[in-house]
Amino acid sequence: MKAVQVTGYHRNLELRDVDEPKLQGPFDVVVKVGAAGVCRTDVHILEGQWAEKSGVVLPYTIGHENAGWVHAVGDAVTNVSVGDKVILHPLITCGLCRACRRGDDVHCESSDFPGIDTNGGYAEYIRTSARSCVKLAGSLEPADVAALADAGLTAQHAAAKAAKLLRPGDVCVIIGAGGLGHIGIQCLKAMSAATLVVLDRNPAALTLAEEIGADVTIVADGSHVDAVLDLTGGHGAEAVVDFVGEGGATAEGVRMLRRAGNYYVVGYGENIDIPTIDVISTEINFVGNLVGSYTDLQDLMVLAAQGRVRLHTARYPLGSFQRALDDLHAGRVRGRAILIP
Amino acid sequence: MKAVQVTGYHRNLELRDVDEPKLQGPFDVVVKVGAAGVCRTDVHILEGQWAEKSGVVLPYTIGHENAGWVHAVGDAVTNVSVGDKVILHPLITCGLCRACRRGDDVHCESSDFPGIDTNGGYAEYIRTSARSCVKLAGSLEPADVAALADAGLTAQHAAAKAAKLLRPGDVCVIIGAGGLGHIGIQCLKAMSAATLVVLDRNPAALTLAEEIGADVTIVADGSHVDAVLDLTGGHGAEAVVDFVGEGGATAEGVRMLRRAGNYYVVGYGENIDIPTIDVISTEINFVGNLVGSYTDLQDLMVLAAQGRVRLHTARYPLGSFQRALDDLHAGRVRGRAILIP
Amino acid sequence: MKAVQVTGYHRNLELRDVDEPKLQGPFDVVVKVGAAGVCRTDVHILEGQWAEKSGVVLPYTIGHENAGWVHAVGDAVTNVSVGDKVILHPLITCGLCRACRRGDDVHCESSDFPGIDTNGGYAEYIRTSARSCVKLAGSLEPADVAALADAGLTAQHAAAKAAKLLRPGDVCVIIGAGGLGHIGIQCLKAMSAATLVVLDRNPAALTLAEEIGADVTIVADGSHVDAVLDLTGGHGAEAVVDFVGEGGATAEGVRMLRRAGNYYVVGYGENIDIPTIDVISTEINFVGNLVGSYTDLQDLMVLAAQGRVRLHTARYPLGSFQRALDDLHAGRVRGRAILIP
Amino acid sequence: MKAVQVTGYHRNLELRDVDEPKLQGPFDVVVKVGAAGVCRTDVHILEGQWAEKSGVVLPYTIGHENAGWVHAVGDAVTNVSVGDKVILHPLITCGLCRACRRGDDVHCESSDFPGIDTNGGYAEYIRTSARSCVKLAGSLEPADVAALADAGLTAQHAAAKAAKLLRPGDVCVIIGAGGLGHIGIQCLKAMSAATLVVLDRNPAALTLAEEIGADVTIVADGSHVDAVLDLTGGHGAEAVVDFVGEGGATAEGVRMLRRAGNYYVVGYGENIDIPTIDVISTEINFVGNLVGSYTDLQDLMVLAAQGRVRLHTARYPLGSFQRALDDLHAGRVRGRAILIP
Repeated sequence: MKAVQVTGYHRNLELRDVDEPKLQGPFDVVVKVGAAGVCRTDVHILEGQWAEKSGVVLPYTIGHENAGWVHAVGDAVTNVSVGDKVILHPLITCGLCRACRRGDDVHCESSDFPGIDTNGGYAEYIRTSARSCVKLAGSLEPADVAALADAGLTAQHAAAKAAKLLRPGDVCVIIGAGGLGHIGIQCLKAMSAATLVVLDRNPAALTLAEEIGADVTIVADGSHVDAVLDLTGGHGAEAVVDFVGEGGATAEGVRMLRRAGNYYVVGYGENIDIPTIDVISTEINFVGNLVGSYTDLQDLMVLAAQGRVRLHTARYPLGSFQRALDDLHAGRVRGRAILIP
Repeated sequence: MKAVQVTGYHRNLELRDVDEPKLQGPFDVVVKVGAAGVCRTDVHILEGQWAEKSGVVLPYTIGHENAGWVHAVGDAVTNVSVGDKVILHPLITCGLCRACRRGDDVHCESSDFPGIDTNGGYAEYIRTSARSCVKLAGSLEPADVAALADAGLTAQHAAAKAAKLLRPGDVCVIIGAGGLGHIGIQCLKAMSAATLVVLDRNPAALTLAEEIGADVTIVADGSHVDAVLDLTGGHGAEAVVDFVGEGGATAEGVRMLRRAGNYYVVGYGENIDIPTIDVISTEINFVGNLVGSYTDLQDLMVLAAQGRVRLHTARYPLGSFQRALDDLHAGRVRGRAILIP
Repeated sequence: MKAVQVTGYHRNLELRDVDEPKLQGPFDVVVKVGAAGVCRTDVHILEGQWAEKSGVVLPYTIGHENAGWVHAVGDAVTNVSVGDKVILHPLITCGLCRACRRGDDVHCESSDFPGIDTNGGYAEYIRTSARSCVKLAGSLEPADVAALADAGLTAQHAAAKAAKLLRPGDVCVIIGAGGLGHIGIQCLKAMSAATLVVLDRNPAALTLAEEIGADVTIVADGSHVDAVLDLTGGHGAEAVVDFVGEGGATAEGVRMLRRAGNYYVVGYGENIDIPTIDVISTEINFVGNLVGSYTDLQDLMVLAAQGRVRLHTARYPLGSFQRALDDLHAGRVRGRAILIP
Repeated sequence: MKAVQVTGYHRNLELRDVDEPKLQGPFDVVVKVGAAGVCRTDVHILEGQWAEKSGVVLPYTIGHENAGWVHAVGDAVTNVSVGDKVILHPLITCGLCRACRRGDDVHCESSDFPGIDTNGGYAEYIRTSARSCVKLAGSLEPADVAALADAGLTAQHAAAKAAKLLRPGDVCVIIGAGGLGHIGIQCLKAMSAATLVVLDRNPAALTLAEEIGADVTIVADGSHVDAVLDLTGGHGAEAVVDFVGEGGATAEGVRMLRRAGNYYVVGYGENIDIPTIDVISTEINFVGNLVGSYTDLQDLMVLAAQGRVRLHTARYPLGSFQRALDDLHAGRVRGRAILIP
């Protein structure tokens, strides 16, 4: 089959002919890829940023946001059948460790991450596990949702944590209305009655934010911290969900946070650097957020099927992977780029 | 001033001239009544159903759903000022017992209930406490919200408990789309992404339910339990919020509940009568619901100001109280009846 | 191998020679039974009470509280190895349904229950799943803990729910200091600083209760409801954990419950029969309790290894199963009876 | 009356004759001081560290950990009577803001802090509010508990948050077994079945820690991070409660934390300085902790009355305040120093 592979770092991906993946274990599932999201992480992989961390052996097939149709199932698979439309949770988890048994499978003690440390979905077929397959509602197509499998799921996961504590009228500041923020806003709107205040440097991103649920939008032009404080009577917001995490966002975000408020760390890049006395005297919390669990992905697919979460996509044939990456790098992609094998 | 009073049981209310209430304690607030909700409980009071329970001394002024403008404040009042538009929490609570200190003021060990056990709001003025006053947003008028002060607050309180546990796509059955159900549906829609399935015997009530957020409506014609089971793949709903509580609703409601589901008891009349083995073998819960707390009322006023909770009202001058009660009794009131002093 | 089987209802169990169980699927585990708890449910099975509900085909091997040593493992098993000491969760769960994925595996949509609907542990060997095996600490032996696998796990599960909400000094009434209550008291003591008030008709059971953590014991002689009310200033207890559920326990239990209190239903037999107005006017909750999850069993084994939960056992060789059942029936067993193959 | 006052910064406290405090408002309570804790914060006040932050006008009476007997009560006070033994919550809160109404009175929008920004308890009498008085059980004396009013309450508050999430066998690392840690260990022991691992540089502090509930103690000699990792199979602890917050404690603490673990910040001094990528890739949380609420103080007094929390004290007559401060400064106080007027 055709597969787009990493053959070395600091060089372009290559389209190669490789063997189709076969079932190896009783819970294995082979999926015919319907769509694979093109993510900034893919660029970072090529730059070698993940080489040591993942320990992956080259060449291998990239692509960690995948959806498609079940092609073959192992003997013990009972939750999906050949032909089912599915989106794939980004992790293949063991199902037996204590984290998995608590439903917190993201912290599985022994997981694989296709596209990162084993073969991914820039290909005609991918091998995954029954534990990674979430069936899609009839109204959803793989190309509609593939790009939600990792980045979108992270945004949903953070939004769900925040929504659980937000009461009507509480102010939730969302820093960054890009790829993740865009999903986070829709999830927060669906799951809470908080007032959503969205910050971004890009006015166009804020226009989109308003269309999808932002109650207030503020251009991050240097006066935005004061604007949030004004809006909240000087108290700050009950929650800040930070999809940026660099360029000074965390220090600004903390200034916008109310006493006893929660700061959700999603984006990353810089350090959180804050005096412990500030943490205790205002009694604020910092809440880390990794990708969501399997049931979070089920929830996100419900929100997508309900039309409450929508994603704009730019579609490319699998063979045009280089153009997709170039467009992503040049900022020419509106929403998310998707490869269609 | 003019006040509508209970002068005896099993006889009509009377409009009488009484002294205006005065401030008596440092936290007292006198409110010029802008609107008072007419509630079925008022009818029950006249029937003597509350006589023994409340221990109220006749004559007294009825009316427990009140909103208006602050007219005078005691020395220690800091949260409202003369002229403020306010809705009144139905209870006057002590603020010092452990329940009050936990924020669970509805279970105050020493509370008064104006309109039930002390003078209420079918009058030009009412005496209450600073602890009962919730300021209204500029866009809300007393007549818009008075009828939310007790019945609406109960619905919001139950809805908020349910919403906290409902995940996207979970099914929440709402039994009864009348006065309380109508508010409960709007609150659940605002605070969750659950699928709302509304049951009522009255098709007109279901039409309204669809307009305000019901995802599915089912006429309660005898086949409704099966309809809910069909809809949920035979599993039943994650939550049932029962605004009826009589006429067999609870037995039917339990049959519609999924394993590990939550049954929210709001309406009342009949007994819950269920084998303990059914409770443990399905591991279901029954959750009692009384009126909401002070902060619940703040939340409900936020939802009202956001336009997420709306109430249709029929307005009557204070002097027309008898006509309002007659219309209520005859089923001629759409939404809630309101007296305007 | 030797196995004790149900060969018909309303007749005694029989010791028979049967084939050893073999591995059939990739997650199967065969365990050499070290100890099997003798439970009142076993008596009920022989009386035919479970015949229709379980649909089991006779003859089959009884015994649903099992511990021992891993004898053989399927290809996909990674969490236990041959020779490991293990206790078996009573259910074999699928691991793929939404309930399993949330960690709520007790509500698995497709589970088996060895000893009830498939072959159990009154035998030399039992076939189970990797998902049912909890490894034992070095200090614990199968015979020490086997009887905790089902009844004890139920008590722990209810106690953990209650402990999560109990604050220091809150009063928790425990109805029944028998087999389950005995474990529940120890779990509550380990996990909370609540005041534990234990009721039982049997003074000897209360003496034991005091030794294992009861703060107050009250003989259930008719004056016990008043005794609890006196103890709580007339308010009642924040929680009631009812391990009896028959003979009027639930009506009495509700009278002992404080406003906003939680009633944990564990024992069963009679109906809960309560006016909805009482549920809403006091805002109490009824919380169903089935057996605990896999991680609950892990927790219980930690408490056992810490010495915080201890169980008195009477041990019988497997061949003496009839004597064990007779002793159980005659009330001659102190603590729990255990068969040792 | 006699009162010990701050008359200037960078100079000693002075014992002066001042007027007894009088009731000024309806909720005021005057308490005859039975004991006042001597706290390191008192030293910091004299060093001028709080001068700007508190805005207090000199001279004023210092002392923020107070207990005694009710001497006079305002007209509206219903929760205590003259003669009652009480401990005083360190804050005088308004009772009317949303934070107070939620039970989160520590974040009151308008509070006073006797001993910091208004007259405190190094005196014969102190004026406080009904909202600050917690009645003591008969078995407790003011001198036994005064030093729990602020520092102890902070430790209890953090411990209660941690205990709510800790399951049996989870590992909770406690950094620092000094004044606060000493209380925190006892609270965690009372409220959870976690394994408590206590770190301190001082072996004598660890000996005491073992007596009051530490399961494991480790001298913080540079190898302690590795020791915790060894103890936890390389995974780290589910919770770290950091009572130190300086000298590198936070960086070390984070290294000891398990994925999805919670870091409770209590002690302060240095900065938390951590890459956001570390926060998100391990999905850890930082939880700020200020002093506990009024109901937390009630809980702590329950634990003290139960004998589950004990405090060693060194008592000095009020006039010997300078000796108490000198002993504190020189490290000669075992447990907490207390002034007895």
